[in-house]
Amino acid sequence: MDRQPSASGTTTRSERKRQAIIQAAGEVFLRHGYLGATTDEVAARASVSKQTLYKHFADKEHLYAEVILDASAGVLDVLSSATASTLQDAQDVRKALRALAGSFLSTLLQPDYVRLRRLVIAEADRFPEVGTAWFEGPFDRALVILGEAMQRLADRGLLRNLSDPTRAAYQFAGLVMYQPMNQVMFAGTGAIPPAGQLNRIADSAVDMFLATYGQENRPRADPADGS
Amino acid sequence: MDRQPSASGTTTRSERKRQAIIQAAGEVFLRHGYLGATTDEVAARASVSKQTLYKHFADKEHLYAEVILDASAGVLDVLSSATASTLQDAQDVRKALRALAGSFLSTLLQPDYVRLRRLVIAEADRFPEVGTAWFEGPFDRALVILGEAMQRLADRGLLRNLSDPTRAAYQFAGLVMYQPMNQVMFAGTGAIPPAGQLNRIADSAVDMFLATYGQENRPRADPADGS
Repeated sequence: MDRQPSASGTTTRSERKRQAIIQAAGEVFLRHGYLGATTDEVAARASVSKQTLYKHFADKEHLYAEVILDASAGVLDVLSSATASTLQDAQDVRKALRALAGSFLSTLLQPDYVRLRRLVIAEADRFPEVGTAWFEGPFDRALVILGEAMQRLADRGLLRNLSDPTRAAYQFAGLVMYQPMNQVMFAGTGAIPPAGQLNRIADSAVDMFLATYGQENRPRADPADGS
Repeated sequence: MDRQPSASGTTTRSERKRQAIIQAAGEVFLRHGYLGATTDEVAARASVSKQTLYKHFADKEHLYAEVILDASAGVLDVLSSATASTLQDAQDVRKALRALAGSFLSTLLQPDYVRLRRLVIAEADRFPEVGTAWFEGPFDRALVILGEAMQRLADRGLLRNLSDPTRAAYQFAGLVMYQPMNQVMFAGTGAIPPAGQLNRIADSAVDMFLATYGQENRPRADPADGS
């Protein structure tokens, strides 16, 4: 959720205030939800006047949209960096995918991210354009980038059968994230499955992914060994 | 979301009122969210007095919990029936799993279900016990039931490698549901992917599942053909 100010070079005083308001608003929205949040509390927390707040953001709706878009850019940065750093020069595709699965789990199950995700979902019918921006932004875009990285692995002869790289990326993410993400979304931010279970989910996700897309000719005899 | 009254035999007048209140409350919570819902509106919509409402439900919190638990029992019924009817006597496991994927998609992407799911997620930090009941109820329980059905297919020689049937069930659900469910959760209840895309997702989910758990010795040459 940290993000460099978009102004190039020096950070102006106005831009610093804008960032302080966005930061404060993120905390207030996460704590109280959209309906419960007030611009009074945001201004107080950011140590700016209401006048300054409204100079930067026309109203609570615009502030909400900016908070979510700002955060979504941050999440996309983290996911695309993790994808690049694990897959770009990979020699051992199994090891690389397993590392990426670990990065996805540790990034996406963080309590602040889970709360943010829950907020966007809660408000998706009230603010469909913000929800759509989130889906097309960090969510879909991260998986398109993952698909492109998978395609480069295929070009290097490390994966096969990749007729639809974005779908392969969604399959990988679905295998890794479906159970733990739903668990934290429903059962509360703290309900992260224990590390041993996450490791088994990630191991078997990579096994299953490579049984279809790997260059090894056949799946291993027992893809879920160790359980 | 329809559910038979729990009283055996005849439906009493009191039980009918209770059901009418739950039905009305579900509509009010889905429309306004937890914070925006009032027991006044629920009572009016159910055509009962506030006194009658409070005779059945101590307060808005208890009413919310009952609405979600009632709905979750309904969802579990639908999913477990779909699992039983498609897999129980299956001869062609590919065809059966493909039919089940279609049932999951058509059941779980219905707007009312999506709104309900969004409500439970929105309120998961306020009511962790309700969110947990939802996760352990229709969500996890449906997948345990699916895993058991998969185990019976393995016992009949139609699947293999099933060392952890529940995990296999989660993998199947993740492959089928991850993309479309996230799309509707974020981009709005109406953002269901087009039928052609859902069909390709379901087809390739079954291909991928069977590449690991099927009795065919190897995955098909192109698991994503037709795209």
